[in-house]
Order: sequence, then C-alpha cells, then structure tokens
Amino acid sequence: MGSTTVALAELIAALGGDLLGGSDIAISRIAPLDEADAASISFLANSRYQSQLAKTAAACVIVGPAQAEAAAARGAAIVTPDPYLYFAKLTQWWAARTRPAVHAGVHPSAVVSPEARLGAEVSIGPLAVIEAGAVIGDRARIGAHCVVERDAEVGADTRLAPRVVLGYGCRIGARGLVHSGAVIGADGFGLAPSKQGYVKIEQLGNVRIGDDVEIGANTCIDRGALADTVIEDGVKLDNLIQIAHNVHIGKNTAMAGCAAVAGSTRIGANCTIGGAANIIGHLTLVDGVHISAATTVTRSIHEPGVYSGPHPFEDNASWQKNAATLRQLHTLRERVRALEKK
Amino acid sequence: MGSTTVALAELIAALGGDLLGGSDIAISRIAPLDEADAASISFLANSRYQSQLAKTAAACVIVGPAQAEAAAARGAAIVTPDPYLYFAKLTQWWAARTRPAVHAGVHPSAVVSPEARLGAEVSIGPLAVIEAGAVIGDRARIGAHCVVERDAEVGADTRLAPRVVLGYGCRIGARGLVHSGAVIGADGFGLAPSKQGYVKIEQLGNVRIGDDVEIGANTCIDRGALADTVIEDGVKLDNLIQIAHNVHIGKNTAMAGCAAVAGSTRIGANCTIGGAANIIGHLTLVDGVHISAATTVTRSIHEPGVYSGPHPFEDNASWQKNAATLRQLHTLRERVRALEKK
Amino acid sequence: MGSTTVALAELIAALGGDLLGGSDIAISRIAPLDEADAASISFLANSRYQSQLAKTAAACVIVGPAQAEAAAARGAAIVTPDPYLYFAKLTQWWAARTRPAVHAGVHPSAVVSPEARLGAEVSIGPLAVIEAGAVIGDRARIGAHCVVERDAEVGADTRLAPRVVLGYGCRIGARGLVHSGAVIGADGFGLAPSKQGYVKIEQLGNVRIGDDVEIGANTCIDRGALADTVIEDGVKLDNLIQIAHNVHIGKNTAMAGCAAVAGSTRIGANCTIGGAANIIGHLTLVDGVHISAATTVTRSIHEPGVYSGPHPFEDNASWQKNAATLRQLHTLRERVRALEKK
Repeated sequence: MGSTTVALAELIAALGGDLLGGSDIAISRIAPLDEADAASISFLANSRYQSQLAKTAAACVIVGPAQAEAAAARGAAIVTPDPYLYFAKLTQWWAARTRPAVHAGVHPSAVVSPEARLGAEVSIGPLAVIEAGAVIGDRARIGAHCVVERDAEVGADTRLAPRVVLGYGCRIGARGLVHSGAVIGADGFGLAPSKQGYVKIEQLGNVRIGDDVEIGANTCIDRGALADTVIEDGVKLDNLIQIAHNVHIGKNTAMAGCAAVAGSTRIGANCTIGGAANIIGHLTLVDGVHISAATTVTRSIHEPGVYSGPHPFEDNASWQKNAATLRQLHTLRERVRALEKK
Repeated sequence: MGSTTVALAELIAALGGDLLGGSDIAISRIAPLDEADAASISFLANSRYQSQLAKTAAACVIVGPAQAEAAAARGAAIVTPDPYLYFAKLTQWWAARTRPAVHAGVHPSAVVSPEARLGAEVSIGPLAVIEAGAVIGDRARIGAHCVVERDAEVGADTRLAPRVVLGYGCRIGARGLVHSGAVIGADGFGLAPSKQGYVKIEQLGNVRIGDDVEIGANTCIDRGALADTVIEDGVKLDNLIQIAHNVHIGKNTAMAGCAAVAGSTRIGANCTIGGAANIIGHLTLVDGVHISAATTVTRSIHEPGVYSGPHPFEDNASWQKNAATLRQLHTLRERVRALEKK
Repeated sequence: MGSTTVALAELIAALGGDLLGGSDIAISRIAPLDEADAASISFLANSRYQSQLAKTAAACVIVGPAQAEAAAARGAAIVTPDPYLYFAKLTQWWAARTRPAVHAGVHPSAVVSPEARLGAEVSIGPLAVIEAGAVIGDRARIGAHCVVERDAEVGADTRLAPRVVLGYGCRIGARGLVHSGAVIGADGFGLAPSKQGYVKIEQLGNVRIGDDVEIGANTCIDRGALADTVIEDGVKLDNLIQIAHNVHIGKNTAMAGCAAVAGSTRIGANCTIGGAANIIGHLTLVDGVHISAATTVTRSIHEPGVYSGPHPFEDNASWQKNAATLRQLHTLRERVRALEKK
C-alpha cells in the first residue's frame, strides 16, 4: 500500500459534503477517533463514541448534522447526512489512490484455453487456469492461481483474488469480489444409502451468483443437485462460510464468518446472519430476519425480527452446576407443577 | 455440462426398473416433482411429498411399488424397490453422458518428479505438482493446482478436484473423490508448554484414507502425532470439516458441513454427524450413533441412537429472558427443593 | 518420512536427561505406552496413564523423577523434570533426522518478481508466486503454490507449507510455520449500509504476525480496516480458524480448530481458546483466560479463569423435552416465585 497526502478541498471535490474549516489542511491517514493524529481524518458514525469527539487529535472529523457544531469547535469537520457511508466511500477513494494500478493482460505463465472468451482489458494473473468455454467479462481481474473451469462465467469488473476456484458452469455477475481460497461449485453433499454403503448423487446443477456480491476467504458454495444454488445481487458473505446445495440467498443479505446454511434452505432479502450461526436444511426465512451469532436455526421463520440462541457462557463452575440442572429441567417443571397442585 | 435427450427405454436398459407407460417418451431433464416439466423425469422417495405426485408435470416418475398405481394413473412411471437409490444411479448415468470426457495424460505445465510413479491412463491437470516417491493409481485424475507430496499415494480411479493438497506419506484409496481446497496431512496441533512458550511436537504420523471416500471442499484432515489418522472405507465428509490428529472414523460414517472432531477421538461405523456438530478429543462413539446438527459431544457414547444438544433459538427478547434465568438455574432448583420441604 | 534407528546413548547426548538402563538399546520408533513395542521409546506425562507403565512393551520410557523407580523396574528409562517437553524435543530431533533435507534455491517454475528480495539460502517451491517488494528472510521456505503478494514479508527460518496466501503488505516474523490453505490478509468484512445496498469499506490495514507463530490449515486472518490485525509472538492457531479484522491476540495464546474471533476483539496473553469456540466483536479478554470448546463469548472477561458455555447434549428424546421446557424457563421462575409468596 502506497501513501498519499491530500488537501481537504480535494477530498470534498471528489466525495462531496460540507466542509467546516480549512480546505488546505493536509491529510495523510484515515484513523479511528482515538488513534487519530494531526494528519488524520476520522469519523463519528455511532453516538456511543461521541465522547471521543472532544478529545480526538484528528485534523478533520466526518460527522452528521447534529454533531456539526461540536466537531467544528475543535477543528475541521465534514458534515454529511450519513458519516459512515461517507467514510466507506473515502476508503474506496483512498484505496484507488494508493494501490498500484493493475495492468490488463494475460500473464505468460497462465494456462488459458484458446476456447475461453476474454473480454476487454481483463487481467489474468500468474499460473491461473482458464478452461474451455469460460467467459471472462470486461475489465475482470483473475488472480494468481485461480481456476475458472469450463463454461464458467465471471462478470465485468469482477475480481477474483489469488487462488479461487469457480467450478464448471458456475457464474458470478458484475462488480463482484471473491477472496482467496473460496470454492464455488464443489459438489453438494448428496448421498443415497444402500446396503453397499452410500451411493453418490451426482450434482447436476450449478451456482448462480448475482452482481455486486462479495465472498470471503475459504468460503464454500456448493453446486445444486438438480437445480442451481442461487446467491442474489448484493449478497455479502464473510470467510469460512458453508452454503450447501440448492440454498437460495436473497438480495442484500449479509452473513458473518463461519456461518453455515444446510441444503435447500431459502433465506430472504435484507437478512443478516451472525458469525458461526447455522441454519439447518429445507427451511424458509422471510425477508428482514436477523440471526444472532452462534444461533442454530432449526425451524422456518415467518416474521421479520431478531432471533437468538447461543447458550449463555459462565465461569466454568457455574456452567457445570447449571448444565447439570439443565439435564433435569423437564423433571423440575414436573416438580413445580406438583407443588402448584398442592 | 452438456445436455442430452434420452428415451425411457434406453434408461430402463441401463438402470433397470419396471416401466409403466411409453418407452419412447423422451427425457431431457431430471427435476424435483414440483419443478418438473413435460420433458422431465422425477422421483418420489419420501412420502412427505406424495401429494405432489398427482400435480407434477413430469413425463415420468420413479416410485416404489406402493405408489405404482397412483403414478401410472398420471403418466409414465418407473417402479423400483428404492426410488432414491434409483435416482442416485440415474444422476451418475446422466453425468457420465453429459460431462466431457477427461483425457488421460500429463499437462505440460504440471511439475511431476521423475521419481513419482504414475499408473495407467492417469490424468494430471495443469500446474499440478507431484513429488518424488508419490504413487498415482490407474485412471486416477489429479486436478489443476493439486500438490501430491513425496511418498503420498492416490488409489486407482480416485479423483482430486483442482487444488487439493495430499501431504507427504499420506494415502487415499480407490474410487475416492476429494474436493477443492481440502488439505490432507497438515500437522496435527501438538504443543508442549514450557517456560519459553509452546514447544512444537512434530507430527510423525500420516493420514490413511480407505476406498470409496468423499472429502468436501476446504476440509482438513491432520496427520497423526505418532500413529496415523484413519478414515475407513466409505466415509463421506462434507465441506469445511476439521478432523484432528489421530482421529479414527469408522466405515460408512457420514459427516455434514462444518463438523469438527478433536484429537484421538474414535467414531464408529455407520454413524452420522450433523452439520456444525463438534466432538471433543479422546472420546469413543460406538457404531450407529447419530449426532444432530450443532451438537457438542463432551463425553463418550456407548449406545447407538440419536443424540442432540443445540440450544433452542427464539425471538431475541424471549431468549434474553430465558438465558438470564438459565444463569440462575441451579438456584431455581434449590428454591424448588426448599418449597418441597415445606 | 524415512526411518531411523538410534541408540539411547545418542539420544541422551542430543537431548539430555538421566538414563537408567542400557545405553546401547536401539530405538526405531516413538509410540504411546499402549502401542509401544520392544523397539519403541515412549513417555509418561500424564498420571492418568500411570497404570500403563507396568504393562508397556516399550524399550525405554521417558518419565519424571517420581516415576523413575517404577519405570526402571521394567526396562530402560530416561528421567527428566518435564517428560512431555522432553518428548516434544524428541519428536523434533526425530523429524530432523528422518525427513529429507530441503535444498535452498528457487524452483524454475516459480514466478518471482525481480523486485522481490530473497535472503540467504531461501527455498522457493514449484509454481510459487513472489510479487514485487516482497521480502523473504534467510533460510525461509516457501512451499509450492504459495502466493506472497507485493510488499509482504516472511521472517527468517519461517516455513510456508504449499498453497499459502500472504497478502500485500502483511508480515510474519521468524521461525513461523503456516499450513496449507491459510489465507493471511484477505479483506476484513466491512460494509456500510445504504439505500442502494451495502457499500464496501476498503480495508486499508495489514496483518502483523510475530515470531514463533504457527497457523493451521485453511485458517483465515483478515487485514485490518484502518489499523492492523495483530498476532503476537508465540501464538498457535489450529485449522479452520477465523480471525476478523483488527483482532489482537496476545503472546503465547493458543486456539484450537474452528474457533472464531469477530472484529476488533482483543485477547490477552497465555489464553487458550477451545475448538469451535467463538468470541463476538469489540470485546476484551484479559491474560490467562481459558475458554472451553464450543463456547460463545458474548461479553468481555476481566478475570483470568476457565469459562464455559456449550449446551449439554443428551439422547434426543431428553433433549427435546428439556429444550421445550427451556423455552418456558422464565415462566417457570415466575411460577416458583408465586409458590414462594404463598
């Protein structure tokens, strides 16, 4: 990552917002309020951190209208309706400015089938493998060691980090980002029991991923058994997530690390699934469902809302006592019922 | 995936079963009952879906003897003792027919040691690495970017999908299938505490995997500390599973995604381990044990049966109230005891 | 793995300890007490296994002073203050003796930027990619298929197993070991909600890893959002672990497989985190905290000690009854309160 120094005026010109204070102030760093120095721009997006505003050493703070006065009292401020969104766009602008440009072209060590179709200005990294029938959209970037199997498709402006597998016939749309180690299109886990042991059910479907999707490192999305596994536009998946065959994830749903969704489950749009949560198979979760971290979802959810389920943790001695009682909980209820009857 | 069209007669000739109805009906798709169209063959394996039989548009339905009459009343039917098993075999037949043939040979970009031993008709994909002493069985297929380390062995007809690591001295038997990203033979997690921090216990064992084993994407099976980690014939492991050093998994046991087994635990034959379940170390589970999803197994299981343990999930408000009470469960029991004494 | 035979005298010369019994006894295997034969050396580190001492067939047993007499009564013994630590060092000595030497040099198939800096006697495996600005320390070993991105640093004597990604600008110190499939420096999961869906927060920090760190297979450590994600010296991470952006893990802390730590959480030194445990974001755990397997940590921990939280597992019928009661636990408490008032 290179470094950069920018005047606030230049930043405002690129990203908008109302500047209170010196437009010639030079910024060379983005930092949280409590780690900011006199060359930093910071932001206040959560009122929990409001007390840090007076104390921060930041040269400039991005704030909402309600904090404009307090922020300006201590230095420069950029006022904008949604400071967190402004901060997100600032990081994008910053990254574009400081990261080395990627040059279009196919690295000579890549193994690209003559029957693959490469769009304009694509970049294919060292030792990548692009098989016959694969389609790589304009300006897409395929990292080192990626494997794009036959007839798979990568949309325009999508980036695969080094070492991603996109299985045969699978498709990811435009402006996507897939991190290293992700496996898209391994076989779903389909087995028929028989007297001679399990017989494999070949997985004949594909994976279809919409536009603007991000997929984390070492996350797995299996191909469907007969129909496709579907990830709709705008879905964001963190690392080490398991998406089983024929799962359907609705638009703009986000899932945190180590979550898992078993086969054929349908998750609605605009849901959030907490880290290490898991959802068993053949369920339906409607739009707007929020699952807390480490929750096991064992039945369908028909109403939007927040749902939780982790077992509370405690010091070990308390946990042992309570866990022992928990095993007799049903009996305890019977005893209370008996007492009530008296 | 190519497409195909096949007459029912041809299918019966290949797979058996009793055909009720037109042997010249053309099938070009396998589909679930509720997604089938007039060119589809479907199946009824679970009586839960029986109501879909009358409504399906499928040209032909695979059914058991009990449904033969109802199925034939609405169109063609294939009658067979185990419709799900028939369906599994149909998917295999379909895949063999529609997937491009794999050509034997070593891709020129692969790095194959002259001291490796390749069987007849093996296929070594682009950029694969096969080290000295490795043995690749007849007709085995090693995908792009695989690494088969020194003295490792891949059995006949086994397929490694792209980007699998099979560590030095590790062995997988015949007719296996390992999905992308799987790591077989990383070091087990062995550490001796000392005043200067942890001291590594070098892992001197290997991984031994039997015949007919399937291993999911990004699953890890660690090598043993002194003796080997053992996966017996017919075991099926889904994605993102962790098998620690010196675990032993018995014949025909199946484990769903994100399950984890800690060191030296022994799981019997014909067990099923649900997704995201985890089993702590140094335990023994006998044959025929079935662990529900998201269950934590903390002691050995000596009787076959179904065992469960996830904390029930609820709407967040209810969960908070119940979790708070749960922390005082032991006290609650004392209070009931006191009431009973009165 | 090659084999070796060694006289006890040679072993004592290399590793120390007091030998009771024949220094010319030949050892060709290290084995647990119950699997040892007449050519084996074994160890007794846990008094739980003391009963195996009299029965073992081992030629020599490593024991503490308290067991010296009993051990010598049955054959040769090595007496040392910490038998487990001695065993660990023995495995290292054994591995160094039996594993083939790694030759320094850059494999001709590797893609190494002329702007990368390679130290003395480094080994770069087949098809590895080393980008511009990367620094590889003396005697470091970069396995086949690794990707070390621009400006990343690998310390002296550190080994990356095949297929590790070390992202741009990330750094691992000396004497480290990273197993296959690990992804260091993928983007943290940072998103700002907007009316048009999530907007990506570019992750501008790096990952900084200290000396003597081991990282398991397919484990992910994300780069920081603004500041760095930090793993201190001596940390040991098992397989399939998720470390989110801006996590800080203190010195000599060990985490077992499938554990997960969400963003910005700070874990102290000398902690242990059990397998499949997960810790939510923005928490602080002080030094010396031990989290049991499968525990979900939902608040900061300010006192050293052992903390637990898995839901107890049971046979399925008992679990169903108790889980049903659990959903009414708050009501049950109210009923006990009502009874007490009477």
